[in-house]
Amino acid sequence: MSAPHDHVSTAVSQNLSFEALMALLEQIFLRHGTSADVARTLAFNCAGAERDGAHSHGVFRIPGYVSTLQSGWVNGQAVPVVEDVASGFVRVDAANGFAQPALAAARSLLVEKARSAGIAVLAIRNSHHFAALWPDVEPFADEGLVALSVVNSMTCVVPHGADRPLFGTNPIAFAAPRANGDPIVFDLATSAIAHGDVQIAARKGERLPAGMGVDSLGQPTQDPKAILEGGALLPFGGHKGSALSMMVELLAAALTGGNFSFEFDWSNHPGAKTPWTGQLLIVIDPSKSAGQSFAERSQELVRQMHGVGLKRLPGDRRHRQRAKAKVEGIALDPQTLADLRELAGLL
Amino acid sequence: MSAPHDHVSTAVSQNLSFEALMALLEQIFLRHGTSADVARTLAFNCAGAERDGAHSHGVFRIPGYVSTLQSGWVNGQAVPVVEDVASGFVRVDAANGFAQPALAAARSLLVEKARSAGIAVLAIRNSHHFAALWPDVEPFADEGLVALSVVNSMTCVVPHGADRPLFGTNPIAFAAPRANGDPIVFDLATSAIAHGDVQIAARKGERLPAGMGVDSLGQPTQDPKAILEGGALLPFGGHKGSALSMMVELLAAALTGGNFSFEFDWSNHPGAKTPWTGQLLIVIDPSKSAGQSFAERSQELVRQMHGVGLKRLPGDRRHRQRAKAKVEGIALDPQTLADLRELAGLL
Repeated sequence: MSAPHDHVSTAVSQNLSFEALMALLEQIFLRHGTSADVARTLAFNCAGAERDGAHSHGVFRIPGYVSTLQSGWVNGQAVPVVEDVASGFVRVDAANGFAQPALAAARSLLVEKARSAGIAVLAIRNSHHFAALWPDVEPFADEGLVALSVVNSMTCVVPHGADRPLFGTNPIAFAAPRANGDPIVFDLATSAIAHGDVQIAARKGERLPAGMGVDSLGQPTQDPKAILEGGALLPFGGHKGSALSMMVELLAAALTGGNFSFEFDWSNHPGAKTPWTGQLLIVIDPSKSAGQSFAERSQELVRQMHGVGLKRLPGDRRHRQRAKAKVEGIALDPQTLADLRELAGLL
Repeated sequence: MSAPHDHVSTAVSQNLSFEALMALLEQIFLRHGTSADVARTLAFNCAGAERDGAHSHGVFRIPGYVSTLQSGWVNGQAVPVVEDVASGFVRVDAANGFAQPALAAARSLLVEKARSAGIAVLAIRNSHHFAALWPDVEPFADEGLVALSVVNSMTCVVPHGADRPLFGTNPIAFAAPRANGDPIVFDLATSAIAHGDVQIAARKGERLPAGMGVDSLGQPTQDPKAILEGGALLPFGGHKGSALSMMVELLAAALTGGNFSFEFDWSNHPGAKTPWTGQLLIVIDPSKSAGQSFAERSQELVRQMHGVGLKRLPGDRRHRQRAKAKVEGIALDPQTLADLRELAGLL
């Protein structure tokens, strides 16, 4: 499958409805051995990212999902085991399956606990997360809840002050409801740059800005190929981003019972791409807070942010793309669409 | 009071025990109108920061506390009102007093809830926080709990992509227990540099590194005076640090019922220095997690961090200073000590 988004296609792109893209992706997952539940959950997630313009986590990911399933590294039929541990604590053993079905299986219990206790935590372990993190938190904000999630990944980031990689790109995602508007949502890797963006720069033959990564000798480099061939990424924001990345390892792995980013060995599974780690979600019910409604207050913050000259809020671009896709459909270039149809067994 | 730490004193410094320094600070607070409880809590906090080498939040802060109390901006006699809202949610109205006595008043209920529910949240509002944030979270790790706290402050940081300041320096602090070692603790401002460090650079006539702040016209500057005289700070790490700072406003103010960093007006209280906002703490009981003990796992992460060449962990320097002070006492230069004794009415 060719890279769908880093070149201007000369052919006219084709527009699919969200439902049509989701059905196509669902068929790809089913054809590569997942259960119907897993296929539906992953197709919804991946089609949603593509629809929202988050291309690095849209159909771009499908070949990685397919090669991972083919390698036997992940169990596409896994049935998550949900454990009700305490009045604010839910645990899920994802059973070497994907993290999104594990979240889906525990979600109603988590929301019930958050509304009752005021806050609840979901600790997912033995799970594979190969998607954007914002789709995991945004739906809670749609229900009036505040959500925070962290997931660790695979060794590719050098801790600040160290000389070899240890941490994953370890993203943090947050979502909060807002009156008269889309929720406030962000999803940020604690690495200085996303791995996918390094790959795209390498293919284009472009140099990276300073401070993104090191070569195989641990020396700073702006050459994306040197980062990919034995080099590593740096954390964003120096020692501060590094501390946050460390926190993600502690919350997503140590606290869940999952693997640290450096603990799994997929060398016997060529084609495996999905980190086998853990994920933590914290959900808070802001109706328990004092004073005015939380959503009114977050709307006031947004108003003030615009007042000091901010044009675009985190999440704005995705919400705009989503609205556009609802009218126009989701544009895919012909080659990408043909590749997807082939993976689905339709050609 | 002269700046105690940004010059080499020619006089020999004097060493006080922690208890002696705490008693001296307690007397200063009492003499400026606080209750005995508040005096003890703030003296313990401030002497602890000085002992641990966190000079920007040690006795350096005392003149600011004193002028704030004298201005009538904060109520040094405030009695916090603790509300038990839900099985995982505690609220405190700090009653226009300091945040640390509010935390102290709610602490045992918070720990009890975290141990029972697995997670609990403390929402403090109507509070003044003028200290380091790590002293608020580290004691939870000493009890085997994981703690996260955020506090918003006062408008001095320009959101990424905006042209005027809105956010506070909005720190995030985290603490986690560790087997066979001091807890893992960090406390990071979401601004690129702390306000105190800008003041120190201005006094020394030094220039700042690029990317720390802007002048009164919103233009990038490396002149600390230009930042202090109508300019502002930038967030750390560009749009990512800015998103985290926004999250701190939402959690510490909107979720608690406290003021945003831009909402209070102290113009009628000359000498007031303490932001009147809110604070959020989340405490998790890691004994609810699956698999090995959390403290063993965090120790393994530390071992691996040292293995990739990391010399110093977040918090290490403070713990080393603390051990040193236990033996040698806390060194204060004679002028600083004389100033403190004068504020305490002892000269």
